[in-house]
Order: sequence, then structure tokens, then C-alpha cells
Amino acid sequence: MYTVADYLLDIVKALGADEVFGVPGDYNLNFLDHITSRKDLRWLGNANELNAAYMADGYARKKGFAAFVTTFGVGELSALNGFAGSKAEHVPVLEIVGTPLTPVQKASAPIHHTFGDGNFKKFEAAHQALGFHTAHLTHENAVEEINKLIKTMIETRQPAYLTIPMDVAEIQINQEIKNEIPALIKEPMEKTNSMLIELIMEQLNKAKSPIIFIGHELARFKLENFVEKFIVNNNLPFTNNGFSKGVVSESLPQFIGTYNGAFSKHMTKEIIDQADLILLLGVQLTDLVTGNFTQSFNDTKTIALNADHMRFFGKTENAQQPYHFASTIQALSEETISTSIKTGTAFSKMINQPNGTDNKLTQDFYDTAVAAFIQPEEVLFAEQGTSFLGLTMNELPNKARYNAQPLWGSIGYTFPAMLGSQVADPTSRNILSIGEGSLQMTIQEFGFAFRENLHPIILLIENSGYTIERFIHGMDESYNDVAQLDYGKIPQLFGAKKSDYLLRYVTTENELLEAFSQARENTDKLILIRIELAEKDAPKPLRDMVKAAEAAAKVN
Amino acid sequence: MYTVADYLLDIVKALGADEVFGVPGDYNLNFLDHITSRKDLRWLGNANELNAAYMADGYARKKGFAAFVTTFGVGELSALNGFAGSKAEHVPVLEIVGTPLTPVQKASAPIHHTFGDGNFKKFEAAHQALGFHTAHLTHENAVEEINKLIKTMIETRQPAYLTIPMDVAEIQINQEIKNEIPALIKEPMEKTNSMLIELIMEQLNKAKSPIIFIGHELARFKLENFVEKFIVNNNLPFTNNGFSKGVVSESLPQFIGTYNGAFSKHMTKEIIDQADLILLLGVQLTDLVTGNFTQSFNDTKTIALNADHMRFFGKTENAQQPYHFASTIQALSEETISTSIKTGTAFSKMINQPNGTDNKLTQDFYDTAVAAFIQPEEVLFAEQGTSFLGLTMNELPNKARYNAQPLWGSIGYTFPAMLGSQVADPTSRNILSIGEGSLQMTIQEFGFAFRENLHPIILLIENSGYTIERFIHGMDESYNDVAQLDYGKIPQLFGAKKSDYLLRYVTTENELLEAFSQARENTDKLILIRIELAEKDAPKPLRDMVKAAEAAAKVN
Repeated sequence: MYTVADYLLDIVKALGADEVFGVPGDYNLNFLDHITSRKDLRWLGNANELNAAYMADGYARKKGFAAFVTTFGVGELSALNGFAGSKAEHVPVLEIVGTPLTPVQKASAPIHHTFGDGNFKKFEAAHQALGFHTAHLTHENAVEEINKLIKTMIETRQPAYLTIPMDVAEIQINQEIKNEIPALIKEPMEKTNSMLIELIMEQLNKAKSPIIFIGHELARFKLENFVEKFIVNNNLPFTNNGFSKGVVSESLPQFIGTYNGAFSKHMTKEIIDQADLILLLGVQLTDLVTGNFTQSFNDTKTIALNADHMRFFGKTENAQQPYHFASTIQALSEETISTSIKTGTAFSKMINQPNGTDNKLTQDFYDTAVAAFIQPEEVLFAEQGTSFLGLTMNELPNKARYNAQPLWGSIGYTFPAMLGSQVADPTSRNILSIGEGSLQMTIQEFGFAFRENLHPIILLIENSGYTIERFIHGMDESYNDVAQLDYGKIPQLFGAKKSDYLLRYVTTENELLEAFSQARENTDKLILIRIELAEKDAPKPLRDMVKAAEAAAKVN
Repeated sequence: MYTVADYLLDIVKALGADEVFGVPGDYNLNFLDHITSRKDLRWLGNANELNAAYMADGYARKKGFAAFVTTFGVGELSALNGFAGSKAEHVPVLEIVGTPLTPVQKASAPIHHTFGDGNFKKFEAAHQALGFHTAHLTHENAVEEINKLIKTMIETRQPAYLTIPMDVAEIQINQEIKNEIPALIKEPMEKTNSMLIELIMEQLNKAKSPIIFIGHELARFKLENFVEKFIVNNNLPFTNNGFSKGVVSESLPQFIGTYNGAFSKHMTKEIIDQADLILLLGVQLTDLVTGNFTQSFNDTKTIALNADHMRFFGKTENAQQPYHFASTIQALSEETISTSIKTGTAFSKMINQPNGTDNKLTQDFYDTAVAAFIQPEEVLFAEQGTSFLGLTMNELPNKARYNAQPLWGSIGYTFPAMLGSQVADPTSRNILSIGEGSLQMTIQEFGFAFRENLHPIILLIENSGYTIERFIHGMDESYNDVAQLDYGKIPQLFGAKKSDYLLRYVTTENELLEAFSQARENTDKLILIRIELAEKDAPKPLRDMVKAAEAAAKVN
């Protein structure tokens, strides 16, 4: 018997998911049966739904797509902040919500996981108010609604939300519909807007010092290789930001450093300030990746191609053909610039192995040491806070990727997200830098990490509270303290065997470097390195930001 | 300088809160300054926002009101499931959301904690879609909007949501406005609907076997004592349900047991089946408190007085005066029934100290032992799941209260909620019965419990997974497993000193009883009793429910 649930899961599988995350609940249990009965999908239960949403996001960033399952009301609302993060940062995650039986809904029964008011559409309405693409499956429309939602998700690479009543999941359908899945999920091949390509190339050919600015939307549409080819073939200097580090390898000689407005490295800033054309490819210029909107360029210098719109020197170009992001990038990548461009030769890569001493560890040493620690093809997660601020400006080695959440900025996100990324590809090791205030938010997923035998490297900064908030406001206020935990007990509480993990506590530079070497020797263990930093130590970019804000306040 | 923030906090204090919960974030930090600078309010930071919402709910159930603070977007969405639970179960909690500066919002700046689309109203819209009362403070309307929202919250005893931009919090206002707070928060004194009272008394005087059915809305409006007086004066038999156990003391001779439809105790069911009039006072008849809608009575026997409506034998009574819940209950409580009513003399209270053996502990023994363990005036929290099903039908001693979440049913809720209740009144000890799957959801608040030096008794049932879900669907399915933790390490990880806690692991009946005695001897410690039960052991009511469902399925 082939059901609506089976069809939906065949699509999930075809979209590239080998695992499905989530939490069981009594309106999704029968749907879960359709997962556990398959050989080609693994059910990975989370400790709570917020963590499931975060984990799915991390998985999708690595694999291009993820799905997670929640139950009606309680489950989906618990997940909402994580799921909204996927929307803010443009990550295609499908949430499948198991809902009560159709006759129960039709009877407006006052059942659990509702407000008891007979209204079964409020949770969906809340998602719509946030702008999510949604589908409400019924007996009449199930396949049609699934297809419509999936098409939208593929076209937009935005998250999608789907409610499936228990009985609708079990509706029998003709198995032959499976054969239509490849066509359904095929990338829409739009005709290239050749006029637009001509206009862009005309500007590039005319420019004396053009820059390619890599944005995260390129990664979501899997366009990295096209853009890399364009950059290498034309020897074009390129930058990126906190959203998009590593999307195109930072080890390429054309890389001029990560941009962050006035807080960029001097050389990077200089090259960008002097550019006469900046081609923004899938870039979003938000406060935390522009040094709080201190970018030196404006519309007069930029052509911006985004997932859902384009701006040609600030104007929406009215070409005759409609605009389509992916096909534009793909067509552009085939072009050759007629003039020869000097790349930023002066930009020297700065990944140097630091020399340790027995001095107390500082944030500055830590940031430098982490930069040197990352290996090619690894994935670095930087929690929003001091980790993000300290690590974003470092260069990454070849094909290493960087994940953070600079727009949504939900603390606690990176730990489950990193685990999701590690599940998505166990062969490339994930490294997480996170502070204790953030880790406490989602700490229960250590149970997941040990149960699934994952081997990431977790750098836990212990500095007695929400350090980033201290620097923003309330340096000595009690609200920036967090409960003092003995993090060394994490493995034992969360069910690890002695052979599952390596635990280190470091307070000096040399201890950190030694722990790093041990992490490299133990590839078959989860590594937890506890890093003691002073309560009021902070990365240089944060100190600079605060100084700038204070200076601005004095002027005003 | 007296500001909008100070005014709002003066109201919070006047409503009875001595503590404010929440999580700091960069759009609420300056608001938090107004809390920490006060002598009469304590800021209690939580490990995450969902837990803050849960904790505020538990605090409000004890104290009548609670407030918690979140930050814009990420914080409020993380809290949403817990906050929605307060709405479903009618608990007056105020959420204060710190939002970005007014000029930043007006400029539609793509800043962090937004979708980057310049829309700053989506999160509020999501709350509105769920039916929350909301207020959006601006420079023009701050005081007015606060007053309107607070009035609505007092009138409805429903949660309320308020957004306060950082700059609006700091607007200076005339301190004399403080003097108006007592009038603002005064209970609205509606004129009694005397015609309605007459109609009700007419029916009560006529009835041969009337029953008073106590609902949770009575507790939310603090009407317990009025109803108790009415019951005692008139010697009226009364029942309650999983929402409202202990609202009127179950040790009164008029108590006939807790009702749960067909799954009630035989004697309780018999009395209610034979009643000719049931006066439902603030009662909600949802699936999990009616034995899945198996109540024997219908509209022909019931007069229902609820917070927002009344039904007189199924009809909305069109009395000339408007209906008002609290004043109706208060007026009713003054009345005397002319006929003499025989109370359910046959109902014997069943709190008996069980005799333990060295046999393996079973769910049935556990449920009986917990019933005997609870002392007068204590507060018992039963997590939705096997704890709720097993403990709801037990009688409580004098003035003991019972808290669960039978309608919203969000697992993980009770642990933070119980801590909130314990904070609200450190003198009456809180006891929590919870399974491991639920505890994992919100486990990080042990950090809070130890930091705040709280001394509840936590009964942790370890039975390898989501047992209630196993019985509903998927007895042996892997999705009902949870990560295996070593819960004995909780105190150490979460920062407890040896003197802060008592930890026991029990597997036999006698071990449980012994641990209970030790809990009584150690009133100055957090007690954590780990209780090993077989994976597929479940409370009798759950087994009965599953049997009934199976029988029904066979018939259909």
C-alpha cells in the first residue's frame, strides 16, 4: 500500500535527505512509522523541537535540504524560532507537522494541543503571519498541495511548512506517482536573460577595479562552483562576509579578505573602498556583516543579483526577459572579461601557527589559534556572540566552510546546527566555537551527539556569562551572568562511555595548543575543550565596535 | 527620572510579582536595568526563553500573576510554545518584549533578529494570529496602551503580550501616574446579575442530587474560597478534574473524587451519573479530563459558568443584565439552598500509606505511594504523560494543590513550571513527577534550581523513553526511545555543591519509601529521586484507555 506519507517521504529522499529529524508526538506517530519502515531514511529523534529545527538547518546548510517532523501546536511552536532562523538565513528546510484526524478537526473538538476553542488553523496562521510558505493537506488536495509547496521550496530555497492530518497521511494513492518525482524536483531551467548578462559584462569590461562579493544565497542555490570558475577564469578579486565565508574557497589567490565595513582588515577595506564596481552575488548587507552599516560603497557602485530580485546601480533593471537568479549566475559564469584585471596582490593570507606561551589564554590568542587549527574541507561553526565576532575575520583554508547566523542571531543555534551538519557529512569534521551562555540553551543535544556517535570538536568558552551582552550593555549587571555549570560532567550525564570522548580544560596558550594536537590525534571521539577566558575579555572586533559606538555617542 | 519602563514595572509589582523571569538580549538590556535597579523586584534569568515562559506560568499559577522578558524575534518565538500554554490553560502571564529603537524600525533597517525585510511587525502578527491580547508601545501611546492591555489581562485572566522599543522604555513621564495604579488594577466590580443567581438557585433548590463541578478558571480568578464556602454551607457534593484538583480542598467531606468520564473511580462515576443537576464552575471539558469525551452528562443536566460565557442547560441565558463570571460566583456563594442535600457519604478517602516490599517497583505502587507522600499545602506537578494519568485520580490532602497541563499538554513544561511555583512560595514544598523524555526537554533549568537554592522534590521516572507514546502508538518503535542519560550526574553538571541536594536511585518498593522518608528529613535540599520502572509499565488509567480504544476500534 502506497500512501500520501510514503509519497511525501519519497520526495524528501529525492531532495537529498538521508535522515529526518524531529520529536514524536501523538499526532505524528503514524507518520513516523512510514519513516522507520524505510531502509533509505533514518529517523533521528531530538531532545526537543527547537533543537530539531536548529539541527535540520545545519543539515540543510551542508546537504542542501533537510526535513523535520513535529506534532501539532506544542511541537511546531517550540520549533518556531529555529524554523524562522532558516527563513531569515534562506535555508531550505521542510517542516512536516502531524495534525489531528480530519473528523476531529471538522467537529471542532476541544482536544489537547489546541486552545480548546475548536480552531485548528491558528498555528498555521501564525506561520503565515511570519511569511512562511505553507500547505494544509486534506483528503481532497494532498498530492496537489505537496507538489505546489515543494515546487515553491525548490524555486525559492526557502523553508516550507506542511500540516498533515493523521488520516491524510494514510490515504492510499497510486504508486506510479513516484515516477513523476524527478520532474517535480528538477531545478527550474529558465531561459537566460541574455540582455542582463550583456549589461553586466559591459560594466565589468569597463571597470578598472571590480570586485565580486560572494553572498550566502549562492550556497543555498548550489552555485558555488559556477562563481568560482568565473572568478578564477577572469582573475577577479573577491570578498565575502559573515554569511558566506568559505562558499568560494578563501585559499584562492583572488580572495581579498572578509568584509565587515569599517571593521574590515585594513587591506580588505582599502581594496573595496577603491573598487569602481562591486558585483553583489546573493549578498545581504545586514548590520552584523557591515560593521553596523559602515560599508563604504552604495548603489552607484553596485550590481546586486539576489534570489528574488536584482538591482542594477540601485534600479530594478527592466529587461524584456524576466529575472532568474540561478540561470543568471550560471550564464554569467561562462563569460570572459575582455580586459585584464590586477588582483589584490598585496593581500597576504594570515593563517600562521601561533607560538604559545604559558601565559593565561586571551581571546586574541584564541582567535588566532583557532584560525590556524581549522583544516581544509572542515566546517567551522561560530556562535553568534564573541565567537562570531572573533573568528569571522580570519581566513579559512582550502574548501573549509563557515557557518553562523549573523542575521537571525539566535543564541544556542550553533550547537544543534553543527551536529546536524556533522550528521549530514560524517567525513568532514565540524568544529564549533561557543560560549557557555549559548551552550546552556540547547545543551540536551549532547545526548544526541553521544547516541549517534558523532565526533565533532567543541570549543567551549567559559567566561562567566553573556560576554557579548556585557560589552553591548550592562558590563557588571547580574542579568549577564549565567548559572555556573561544571561542564566537565557533560559526557557522563549525557550517556557517553569513556572511549566516546576527549575532555580537556585549558587556561594557558600552550594548553590550548596541546589540546588541539590531541584533538587531531583522536578522530574517533567527540572532543570537548573547555577554554577559560577572563570574564571581560572579548575579541578585538567587539572591542572596536564598542569603542566606535561610544565615540559616535559622544559626537551625537 | 521616572520612565515608561518604571511605570510598567510598578504595575508588575502591584499585580503581585516579586520576581521577573526571562533571558537578556540586546533589545531588552536597558529595560532590564530598570529591574535590577529596584529593591522590590528580583531579576531571575533563565537558560532559555521557552523555560522562562514555562516558569512564569508556574509562578502565576501559584501567585496569580507573572511577568517575563524576552528579546525581539528570536527570544519571543522561542518562548511562544510556553506562552501559548498559558493561553490555553488560562494563566495570566505578561510577556514584555524588548524591541529595536523606534528610528531603526521606522527606517526598515535590515538588522539582526529580523528577516532582513524591514518588517518589524511580523512577530506581533504571529501572536495576534494565535489570539493573544497584544500592545505595541510607541512614543505616542505608551501609557495608554499599557493601561488598556493590563485592564484586559485583569478582566480576562489571560496572558498579554507587549512590545516596548528600547527608546520608548526610557521616555520620561510624570511620576504621579503611579498613584493611579491601584485603580487601574482593581478587580472590575460588576453589578451582580441577580436574575441569573435566582435562576440558578431555583434549579439548585429543585434538584434532588446536584453536584458542584470545580474548574480551573475559579483558581485563575481567585474564587476558590467563595466556592468552598458555598459548598460547605450547603453541604454540596463536589468533584473536579485534572485541571482543577485541589482548587477546593479534596479533604473536605463533600468531595466525591476526581472526574474523568468513564475512567473515573466507580463511586465517583456513579454519583455523577445519578446527579440531576451539575453546576460547572469555570470548567473546561477537554479530551484528557473526560476520559476522551466519555462524560455521562450533557447540556440537559448542566449549568455552566465560565470566564467568558455561561450556558444554562445548553442555552446562553438572555438575562437583562450582562454576565460577569467573578461577581456571579461571589454572589452565588452567599446563597443558601432551601432543601437539605445528602452528600456522597459512600465515598471513602483512599489515601493509605502503602506497605512496601523488596519487589521491583511498579507504576501502580508508585502512584499509590506518591498519593500517600504528598502533605497538606504542598504543590504536586504531574507531567503530561504517565505521571498525569497515574496521579490525577488520587485524592490530595488538605489544601494540597495539583498542577498539570491537560489541555496544552506540552511535555517538558512541568519542570520549569514547578520551579516557578517554588520561587513564588518557597514555604510550600513542590513535588514533581516527570519522565526522562520530558525532563530532557528542559533539563538546563537545574542550573536555575541550584543557583536559586530551591528545595523541591523531583521524582524522575526512568523507563527508557516516551512511555505514554508507546501505549498510544509504536510500543517498540525506535522513535519512542530517548537518549540514555546518567541522571545521577545532574547535580554535578549543573553546579550543585554536595550540601545542596539529596540524590537517590530506587528500584524496589521499599527503596522508594525509604527515599521518601529521607526527602522529608532533608527540607534544605533539592531532592532528586530516580525511579526505575520497566519500559512498558504504565499507570492503570493509561492501560484502561488503550484497552477501551482497542475495543472501540474492534466495534467500528
